[in-house]
Amino acid sequence: MKELIDLIDKHLEEYVPIRYPEDIFKAMKYTLSLPGKRLRPVMCLETARLLGADIQKAMPTACAIEMLHVQSLIHDDLPCMDNDDFRRGKPSNHKVFGEATAVLAGDALLTYAPMTIIEKSKDLTSDQIVKILKEYTRFGGALGLIAGQVVDIESEGGKLVKTPEETLDFIHLNKTAVLFRLAVRTGAIIAGADDNTINEFDEFATKFGLAFQIYDDIMDEISSFEEMGKTAGKDKESGKLTYVSLYGLEEAKNKFNCLIKDCYDIIGKYKSKIFEEILDKLKTRVAS
Amino acid sequence: MKELIDLIDKHLEEYVPIRYPEDIFKAMKYTLSLPGKRLRPVMCLETARLLGADIQKAMPTACAIEMLHVQSLIHDDLPCMDNDDFRRGKPSNHKVFGEATAVLAGDALLTYAPMTIIEKSKDLTSDQIVKILKEYTRFGGALGLIAGQVVDIESEGGKLVKTPEETLDFIHLNKTAVLFRLAVRTGAIIAGADDNTINEFDEFATKFGLAFQIYDDIMDEISSFEEMGKTAGKDKESGKLTYVSLYGLEEAKNKFNCLIKDCYDIIGKYKSKIFEEILDKLKTRVAS
Repeated sequence: MKELIDLIDKHLEEYVPIRYPEDIFKAMKYTLSLPGKRLRPVMCLETARLLGADIQKAMPTACAIEMLHVQSLIHDDLPCMDNDDFRRGKPSNHKVFGEATAVLAGDALLTYAPMTIIEKSKDLTSDQIVKILKEYTRFGGALGLIAGQVVDIESEGGKLVKTPEETLDFIHLNKTAVLFRLAVRTGAIIAGADDNTINEFDEFATKFGLAFQIYDDIMDEISSFEEMGKTAGKDKESGKLTYVSLYGLEEAKNKFNCLIKDCYDIIGKYKSKIFEEILDKLKTRVAS
Repeated sequence: MKELIDLIDKHLEEYVPIRYPEDIFKAMKYTLSLPGKRLRPVMCLETARLLGADIQKAMPTACAIEMLHVQSLIHDDLPCMDNDDFRRGKPSNHKVFGEATAVLAGDALLTYAPMTIIEKSKDLTSDQIVKILKEYTRFGGALGLIAGQVVDIESEGGKLVKTPEETLDFIHLNKTAVLFRLAVRTGAIIAGADDNTINEFDEFATKFGLAFQIYDDIMDEISSFEEMGKTAGKDKESGKLTYVSLYGLEEAKNKFNCLIKDCYDIIGKYKSKIFEEILDKLKTRVAS
């Protein structure tokens, strides 16, 4: 896992060199280079590898998905959004570079990500690139990631999809699960997988995404700033709709455990050390 | 010209239907549907037509470039950027939908634009789509449009590229000319034009873009709110670096006239009523 993360970090560094005007590239690279688990690119590369592709073939796409993720973090932290001063234990982008540059750094990453897929994917055909970009734009935009963010904001104002339960699921299927889905789907496409296999990985990523969000909600409830790398206990303070606030801590843990069990079941046959390590880590922390 | 604008408006309307969550699509459509000259998509379609392609073939790309342009307007107007309350004579996006939704509406358009190219360009091959998206991501991101915006913001803080003259040219070659260049280049690519022809249209668009910015600076100096559709006289008030502030009104007009003359010279042989109408209109207003 560590080697894979290092490899991703190295490529993120390489794909985004500092050019003129330096400030925008510095701002993009600042949040991009904060130490992270790199779960989305790891899952993209590991899916490609499990299905028979060389991971280098998937590297530009994996890194592009991380850029998309980081973009959403930069804009999420803005004063007009979640107004969070910290991210991964460091001052958030707008605290370092100012709001205007943070908005533009996010915008820049949104375009830099598909550019990286196009320009760096030397071993993919145009057909494959178009297929990947189709997934990228579907899952990463108004029909995916951003839909989740909008409903998240609206739910804070008391507006619900239907019930609180459905609202919460909608938010996190879109806001959280969608990028894990994008990661495994594109990894599978790069490996030339058939639709059944793509759907199998998609189901894994969907369940994993929900479990991951419940994990995040549980951690927000029980962790300190040092453990989270961002302001903890914020959800509770703001009366935010979370799995913990809606179902209580114990029931949230139950839901989490069921989803993680399903994940093990789906992915078991591939004997992936990486995926097992990811699942084990989440499970251990929630159980502790 | 009017029919072409109506056709573009119709397709923009069609390409962005209202879906759930409605608020984000309403916010996207709000600024997208403000009546405008649609210069960028018009130039994309007209270039494609002049070089032998059916304009329908270029319609998704033309509309995507307008989405990219509108995205930049929405984010430009934000309080942390230019803080402008009006756009095309109407309250700007964040005044209607709030800042958070305006940020997300811009983000959404940035991804919706390439999605439109991919999903709606039925008559283009994957090779063509990749070529167009390569241009889109190069010109529309940190190496183009956003570079111009960043240097624009920095110049307001007194930071210059080298000289004020170079700074001003850098800003507008990137912030303004870049989308006209993208429009004609992609129009030419869709028509299957050779590199010489692409470069010829590119030169036209570059000069047109600079002329258009000088026109805008002149209008900010001499127009009223009613004529501009946005707050006029703002540049002067804020001490902004413009062609008028740097060279004076007369010299700015001279520069404008030289560039427009070059534009007529380059495009003349194509006998395009559309391009001539666009040039004539700008010229007449500056001369009056």
